[in-house]
Amino acid sequence: MAAEAASSSPPAAITCRAAVAWGPGQPLVMEEVEVAPPGPLEIRVKVVSTSVCRSDVTAWQSKAQPDLFPRIFGHEASGVVESVGEGVTEFQVGDHVLTVFIGECKSCKHCISGKSNMCQKLGLERKGVMHSDQKTRFSVKGKPVYRYCAVSSFSEYTVVHSGCAVKVGLTVPMDRVCLLSCGVSAGLGAAWNVADVSEGSSVVIFGLGTVGLSVAQAAKLRGASKIIGVDTNPEKQEKGKVFGVTDFINPNEMSEPVQQVIKRMTDGGADYSFECVGDTGVVSTALQSCSGGWGVTVTLGVPKAQPEVSAHYAFLLSGRTLKGSLFGGWRPKSDLPSLVDKYADKEIQVDGLVTHDIPFGDINRALELMLENKCLRCVIHMSQ
Amino acid sequence: MAAEAASSSPPAAITCRAAVAWGPGQPLVMEEVEVAPPGPLEIRVKVVSTSVCRSDVTAWQSKAQPDLFPRIFGHEASGVVESVGEGVTEFQVGDHVLTVFIGECKSCKHCISGKSNMCQKLGLERKGVMHSDQKTRFSVKGKPVYRYCAVSSFSEYTVVHSGCAVKVGLTVPMDRVCLLSCGVSAGLGAAWNVADVSEGSSVVIFGLGTVGLSVAQAAKLRGASKIIGVDTNPEKQEKGKVFGVTDFINPNEMSEPVQQVIKRMTDGGADYSFECVGDTGVVSTALQSCSGGWGVTVTLGVPKAQPEVSAHYAFLLSGRTLKGSLFGGWRPKSDLPSLVDKYADKEIQVDGLVTHDIPFGDINRALELMLENKCLRCVIHMSQ
Repeated sequence: MAAEAASSSPPAAITCRAAVAWGPGQPLVMEEVEVAPPGPLEIRVKVVSTSVCRSDVTAWQSKAQPDLFPRIFGHEASGVVESVGEGVTEFQVGDHVLTVFIGECKSCKHCISGKSNMCQKLGLERKGVMHSDQKTRFSVKGKPVYRYCAVSSFSEYTVVHSGCAVKVGLTVPMDRVCLLSCGVSAGLGAAWNVADVSEGSSVVIFGLGTVGLSVAQAAKLRGASKIIGVDTNPEKQEKGKVFGVTDFINPNEMSEPVQQVIKRMTDGGADYSFECVGDTGVVSTALQSCSGGWGVTVTLGVPKAQPEVSAHYAFLLSGRTLKGSLFGGWRPKSDLPSLVDKYADKEIQVDGLVTHDIPFGDINRALELMLENKCLRCVIHMSQ
Repeated sequence: MAAEAASSSPPAAITCRAAVAWGPGQPLVMEEVEVAPPGPLEIRVKVVSTSVCRSDVTAWQSKAQPDLFPRIFGHEASGVVESVGEGVTEFQVGDHVLTVFIGECKSCKHCISGKSNMCQKLGLERKGVMHSDQKTRFSVKGKPVYRYCAVSSFSEYTVVHSGCAVKVGLTVPMDRVCLLSCGVSAGLGAAWNVADVSEGSSVVIFGLGTVGLSVAQAAKLRGASKIIGVDTNPEKQEKGKVFGVTDFINPNEMSEPVQQVIKRMTDGGADYSFECVGDTGVVSTALQSCSGGWGVTVTLGVPKAQPEVSAHYAFLLSGRTLKGSLFGGWRPKSDLPSLVDKYADKEIQVDGLVTHDIPFGDINRALELMLENKCLRCVIHMSQ
């Protein structure tokens, strides 16, 4: 009925608050933005909660794409469908949704394959504009404001392609489930889908942020017997325990390379290693920390510098596997609902990863906390 | 009975002909060498045929280990057990064997795992001496001559650990089955064990030498629908067809990067790609040539220079897998007999990879042919 209402009176532009980045690393400025009505197959979402992901901060600070400012960051979010565009049958006004930064069109070669989440139609939005018409849906006083990662959730309202949203039940807490929109799911999927961690195995995780702790949680749920967490922040030791980490290593407190310590602890190398720092140098360390013959290294992090992963060929030739994943290999529309169910059924922990609840007006504090490595997830409450 | 005879009269040293390298890249010199009797768990083998592998030539030319000369190269070989050392129960004098450059002790963590061929006891011999006592078994006029890759088959007789030999039937042609000792098996295993090529898939192979052509053969036997061979030698086009290559690319004849050509030919990237050149730069090209989401790149080659494999992280993050293998992931003792059976039953081609039959006295010609890229496999006939 809501959809009918939408089709009978086409939605108009909305004016609302958004936190706009005017330049790389510049504090976000709360602006009145105009949000266009949803185009064909698009939906407009009233954002309820958005958590800040490391990649928001990395992209905000990056000077690599100066032309994409002003820009609205944010992608890990939950919200309510405010209006739907032409041809949208899957969503109705009032639906609760998670936004996702890679979509699933269900019709391209990759979506049809059943073994890839690299949708060819709704893949990573690299240019700050919608795939469909190469335009944004935001403006400030007539000046276009670029999008980020298909979502731009640092705004009270945003427009996303209907292939980049997933319906969630009305009783699921919006201010926590938003973490499944990116980081937590990425970690769980890396362990379950990409590495396929087996019972009784040894696992080493470099970087105990939200993603790394989610890898730990997933490994524990699979019955891994040794879960080694590596982090330079000593505070992560206690937090790690909560999520299944059995052994903690602080590389700064070691007098020998961390891969040697790990090899000794695991009788020659871990069965699985995960790079969750976003440092390509650590990928090489992770590869060296896993066992020859069958060791699997999964790289999840988006590096802030030095985009080339480098490894001595001998580490591969001796039977190791290096693989990567985006969003933990989950196909957002096909797979995410089952993760939301697991959260609702208390089979997976999410709430413990939220370290700060912050009103929208204080969003810059969340960015600072992330830059200072003083948080896991800060949840931004848009109505506060 | 032969074993009894051996135990009643312990074998003595043997003097025979061997092709000795006195320095990196220096032509091999036919010398009278003394070959020690086999020690505990060792066997002495009368080499019948040895084929020349690219890694023999790479190691012979390398200036990285000048202290390991004089040295006897060669590892891809077949022969007859001449005598057995103490405790050897698996072999008897007169048995036909293939030598292998990595052994299988069947008792270490890796051998027991059933999923690794990285035996911890009989792994790669890196120092030119036996693992057991750190000594060689060869000398020339009292001067020790180093071993190579656990075998040193460029000698009429050699001593190997009994874990580095595999029995073969007496009717199998010795001068052809020797190719299964390394190169052919490596290629077959890379496709079957490591990549696990599936029916109807697309495969791209960089380098159509013995290993690459064996990958092609294995992919064809798995029912791959498109097998693209990449080689700068135009003569490989016809040879490739014999082993299943359906499309040939000569990068020198292309005006655009070969990965772009391959992406076009495979609707976005091959399902599997194999690096069989021994060039870490090609590993990166191979990774870029396979599909995001599910593409698997297997690196088999031993690089002659630049040992670091390098790849932009985005190629991994978008769901590609990079893995390596030594000896195609085969466990030599457990798995090689089944490959020999396949050869005996004409299920796999081996003979067509032999381009030259060369008497032992002309062995330097074989090295030259390999250096000039004018051969696939040269088989050295020791009795000629």
